[in-house]
Amino acid sequence: MGRRVVIVGGVAAGMSAATRLRRLDEEASITVLEAGDHVSFANCGLPYHVGDVIPDRGALLRDAGQIAERFRLDVRRGHEVVALDRDARTVRVRSADGETDEPYDVLVLASGAAASPLPTDGSVPTHTLRTVEDMDAIRAAVDGGVRRAVVVGGGYIGLEATENLVRRGVEVSLVIRGDQVLRTLDAEMAAPVHEHLVAHGVALRFGAAAERVDAGHVVLDDGERLLADLVVDGTGVRPASSLAERSGLDIGPTGGIAVDARHRTSDPAILAAGDDAEKQDAIGGEPALVALAGLANRHGRAVADVIAEAPAATDAPPALGTAIVQVFGLAVATLGWTEARLREAGRAIRVVHTHPIDHAAYYPGAEQMTVKLMIDAEDDRLLGAQIVGRAGVDKRIDVLATAIAGGITASRLSQLELAYAPQFGSAKDPVNLAGYVAENLALGQAAAVQWHELPGLLADGWTLVDVRSPGEFARGAIPGAVNLPLDELRARHGELPADRVVVHCQVGQRGFTAARLLGQLGHDVANLDGGYRTWRDGEA
Amino acid sequence: MGRRVVIVGGVAAGMSAATRLRRLDEEASITVLEAGDHVSFANCGLPYHVGDVIPDRGALLRDAGQIAERFRLDVRRGHEVVALDRDARTVRVRSADGETDEPYDVLVLASGAAASPLPTDGSVPTHTLRTVEDMDAIRAAVDGGVRRAVVVGGGYIGLEATENLVRRGVEVSLVIRGDQVLRTLDAEMAAPVHEHLVAHGVALRFGAAAERVDAGHVVLDDGERLLADLVVDGTGVRPASSLAERSGLDIGPTGGIAVDARHRTSDPAILAAGDDAEKQDAIGGEPALVALAGLANRHGRAVADVIAEAPAATDAPPALGTAIVQVFGLAVATLGWTEARLREAGRAIRVVHTHPIDHAAYYPGAEQMTVKLMIDAEDDRLLGAQIVGRAGVDKRIDVLATAIAGGITASRLSQLELAYAPQFGSAKDPVNLAGYVAENLALGQAAAVQWHELPGLLADGWTLVDVRSPGEFARGAIPGAVNLPLDELRARHGELPADRVVVHCQVGQRGFTAARLLGQLGHDVANLDGGYRTWRDGEA
Ligand SMILES: Cc1cc2nc3c(=O)[nH]c(=O)nc-3n(C[C@H](O)[C@H](O)[C@H](O)COP(=O)(O)OP(=O)(O)OC[C@H]3O[C@@H](n4cnc5c(N)ncnc54)[C@H](O)[C@@H]3O)c2cc1C
Ligand SMILES: Cc1cc2nc3c(=O)[nH]c(=O)nc-3n(C[C@H](O)[C@H](O)[C@H](O)COP(=O)(O)OP(=O)(O)OC[C@H]3O[C@@H](n4cnc5c(N)ncnc54)[C@H](O)[C@@H]3O)c2cc1C
Ligand SMILES: CC(C)(COP(=O)(O)OP(=O)(O)OC[C@H]1O[C@@H](n2cnc3c(N)ncnc32)[C@H](O)[C@@H]1OP(=O)(O)O)[C@@H](O)C(=O)NCCC(=O)NCCS
Ligand SMILES: CC(C)(COP(=O)(O)OP(=O)(O)OC[C@H]1O[C@@H](n2cnc3c(N)ncnc32)[C@H](O)[C@@H]1OP(=O)(O)O)[C@@H](O)C(=O)NCCC(=O)NCCS
Repeated sequence: MGRRVVIVGGVAAGMSAATRLRRLDEEASITVLEAGDHVSFANCGLPYHVGDVIPDRGALLRDAGQIAERFRLDVRRGHEVVALDRDARTVRVRSADGETDEPYDVLVLASGAAASPLPTDGSVPTHTLRTVEDMDAIRAAVDGGVRRAVVVGGGYIGLEATENLVRRGVEVSLVIRGDQVLRTLDAEMAAPVHEHLVAHGVALRFGAAAERVDAGHVVLDDGERLLADLVVDGTGVRPASSLAERSGLDIGPTGGIAVDARHRTSDPAILAAGDDAEKQDAIGGEPALVALAGLANRHGRAVADVIAEAPAATDAPPALGTAIVQVFGLAVATLGWTEARLREAGRAIRVVHTHPIDHAAYYPGAEQMTVKLMIDAEDDRLLGAQIVGRAGVDKRIDVLATAIAGGITASRLSQLELAYAPQFGSAKDPVNLAGYVAENLALGQAAAVQWHELPGLLADGWTLVDVRSPGEFARGAIPGAVNLPLDELRARHGELPADRVVVHCQVGQRGFTAARLLGQLGHDVANLDGGYRTWRDGEA
Repeated sequence: MGRRVVIVGGVAAGMSAATRLRRLDEEASITVLEAGDHVSFANCGLPYHVGDVIPDRGALLRDAGQIAERFRLDVRRGHEVVALDRDARTVRVRSADGETDEPYDVLVLASGAAASPLPTDGSVPTHTLRTVEDMDAIRAAVDGGVRRAVVVGGGYIGLEATENLVRRGVEVSLVIRGDQVLRTLDAEMAAPVHEHLVAHGVALRFGAAAERVDAGHVVLDDGERLLADLVVDGTGVRPASSLAERSGLDIGPTGGIAVDARHRTSDPAILAAGDDAEKQDAIGGEPALVALAGLANRHGRAVADVIAEAPAATDAPPALGTAIVQVFGLAVATLGWTEARLREAGRAIRVVHTHPIDHAAYYPGAEQMTVKLMIDAEDDRLLGAQIVGRAGVDKRIDVLATAIAGGITASRLSQLELAYAPQFGSAKDPVNLAGYVAENLALGQAAAVQWHELPGLLADGWTLVDVRSPGEFARGAIPGAVNLPLDELRARHGELPADRVVVHCQVGQRGFTAARLLGQLGHDVANLDGGYRTWRDGEA
């Protein structure tokens, strides 16, 4: 018989390790210990069964027996590992049958993330949304006639819970500790998401943390009490690393289990992967938490390669954190760092906002999106990206993630040979276009200012010129702007001062042409990046 | 006054050069000579106005006056350049007002492609589909009550014309010289497109070339006569390089104008970009024709950088030919070389077929696609890709194009950190999955055979094992296969010979697990790449 491999946790990382290991090694003894009732279930689908988007609960579940048989695994559900004895190389397992010790040669920790539920007096059903049981309970509550729900937390799970409750006719208040949803977004990129949530009837409650559930209300830390007959708590998730910690394994600064690029913990017999383990951040190099299914699956699989000493075993590249979430039809995708974080870290950056359409304007159904890039001012590398829109968002974030992996600089995005037909893109794809804008900035073709720099410039006496049409100007303009349409600039540029001019249009494009023109006509001029649209979102 | 720049052709490449040049150089004199009545029109939208998908004809057109004014261009429509005198540095221009000579310091040839129309006796309206006038004429014919159309040529334009005529209720016969549509596809990838066309009522006529239109019929070179009351000719397109050729400029082996990576012809005062000029092929390095709008726009813009000696001027990277077309809802995307072409060239390659779904199976609307990769057997680089499916095809081809540009090998596709939520992908995206399959091949984790190798193996006495379920087997199986379901393999593998075993499943995935298992149990075994699905498409 081969080595005894014991895996704690039987979902994304754990089961990926188990199945791959079996494909590599028919001899190993592989035991999967799963505290819950389900293995290999689709966590990411849970909110959509609540919302009845996925009416068939069974679609989220996998037949544990079949996986066990196909891959000759000893899969034990309802088996929680409660202690780890590294000297004896055993884990203590608690199940309905009591406690036993399970010996291992190699241990894999794939226990995911843990949530600390909101303290409650039991007056209102209160749940996290992480397990099949959570889902069943929330759905049962909704079926039973919930009218008002409070969702706590503006992260992915909070947003998906909100959408799906609204879908079921529930009135939702979303409680957010900070002043925006999704900390992976900068403020002006979160603004359209807020607008969209409000347009779908969600009550947003910023700047307050939920403290407890009491007498039919959620009590906030500023004292406010929100009436609720269901509470979904999407906050307080952290790596499930306490077992590791108690046994003396190294825990990293993030609270996750510290691992090297081969997923090895500080104990050579123990590996860890998934939400319980740290990743290395691709932008800063430091340890980071990235609780996403793609990495959990990949790192789980890689664990098997390491255990089997397979030729495929390689160092995991650092993590970008590419992520996407859809909220009422609006897709929000991010990777890398935010502008705010980069500025706080003192990084010299260039920032680009564009508002392209997902496919050719003349073909029906084109939708506008907003693309934001953060670029290293020294080496032109991409440090972050944020995209918000109704269509084509997933494609562009994936292209950007791939570009980063391939070391393609921001300027060189312009040269990517992307597939074009009018249903799918434009002859200049949004990614190409962002590359041109980045290149123009990098080469000094046009200076740009950010929306948050504008108030300072105006206070310093700069002249703000709106080069849109009079009609656009009339429908809403930046206070203090003078209107001088692009097509009149050549004739009327004498009306403008020679220095300290900012031009802007709706999205940045005509502003760029205006800036090039004025620059050649002798003015010292900058273009407002992202135009009126980005300014408006920033001021929202 | 600045240099006199004269541009021949006022659409994708020509107008991109003109507008960019103006942004770089306010002084230059820029003249655009366009033979037709329209500049900057959306060629790629023409078929969809015929089909009434784009009911508003104006959506395809641009206001020439506004472009001229904004960018201070001398735009002359209805002005055809009929001769070029390189010694005198003049072009001869023919317009309604007669002929004149126009002097230039720099000349840009952006005259696109030319089509030789099918000879006709005038008995049936017969058109190419390249200009606004072509579109108007075809649409008028359809409005006038066309019942039967013959479309000649199975390339992009032939397919788009076909779809849009069918949309208008016209019965279409599609005449194709070879035995498949789209030469950028291998046979087994074209098969589902054929099936799809037939399912939409299109009559496919392979292996014959249209020779002429005669007495209400299209006459094929095998003598057959097809009744038609409209003929759309999508064949015979070649670079519009005759002007260049007559003036003694170098013409490349493809018939396109020979240019260097800075778009310079053999005459230092003349540049060329777009469909009339050659590109360098990214896979083989040789001159190639890639008549696509993305490159025309990019190279047109780059021409301006070269003329203005702008800092952005760089060598154009070689062309991959990334392309996509949609046919009755089916998207077909390609890049690089086909398997057939690579094998013909004697390149050592690995080939991967997968049939993943575009997003999580449990989320509504998931659609299966077929992904094919051609991989250099020596350095693991991608040499070609083909994807066919209803959703998510454009995203995956763009990710692959970006990966190639970034030098990411096939095996490393597995590590791309792509955005996942159940609406948009899977925790293992189709691109990641193809990377795993490629890596397993590269590392010898499992041998694979291609569908076209199977007949030879069976003739040599190999045993073919279908590891699908008995139900799947009963619904259709490969002749000669024995059924031994994956989950019984461990118990029953003794029934199989030790050597020369091929396993297969529906798409390749269970077959891979079976091959791993049998390999470890001592069998010499290979997996049929792409499974039953690819075999069936190949035999179609
Ligand atoms: C509602 C929801 C939606 C999500 N949506 C997305 C999305 O759209 N995209 C995305 O990328 N990610 C999403 N995620 C995150 C993704 O599901 C996780 O990143 C991924 O599942 C992590 O995999 P894992 O194997 O590390 O942990 P998990 O999949 O959480 O599995 C860990 C398992 O370990 C078990 N366990 C824990 N401790 C013990 C113990 N001591 N003994 C035995 N068993 C134990 C747990 O019961 C659990 O089943 C979502 C998560 C949730 C909850
Ligand atoms: C119906 C159709 C659909 C298409 N769909 C797609 C698609 O989905 N995706 C894609 O990437 N590509 C598509 N293309 C191809 C794309 O349109 C071309 O690659 C692109 O337009 C080439 O740009 P160009 O500037 O080189 O040539 P063109 O855009 O063709 O412009 C050349 C211009 O030069 C003018 N001209 C020629 N000779 C002279 C002369 N001697 N004097 C003056 N003027 C002259 C012509 O009148 C013409 O207007 C499609 C093309 C067509 C026709
Ligand atoms: C499903 C699960 C058990 C993993 O099972 P798995 O068999 O390793 O993975 P898949 O079913 O994706 O199959 C992938 C394997 O088939 C191979 N494969 C897939 N398609 C193939 C094809 N067409 N030809 C050859 N091989 C193929 C892959 O190479 C891979 O094998 P490898 O890892 O040895 O390289 C695990 O991912 C899981 O538990 N998932 C559910 C939980 C989850 O992920 N939740 C979060 C998201 S909702
Ligand atoms: C439209 C056309 C005239 C080109 O005009 P253009 O002004 O050069 O190009 P666009 O309108 O795409 O604008 C791009 C310019 O705006 C800039 N820009 C775009 N968005 C911007 C933003 N948000 N901020 C700053 N600059 C921006 C780009 O950098 C680029 O300028 P650059 O080339 O100097 O770098 C030409 O492409 C054309 O004729 N197209 C129609 C024909 C065609 O392409 N047919 C085939 C496909 S159907």
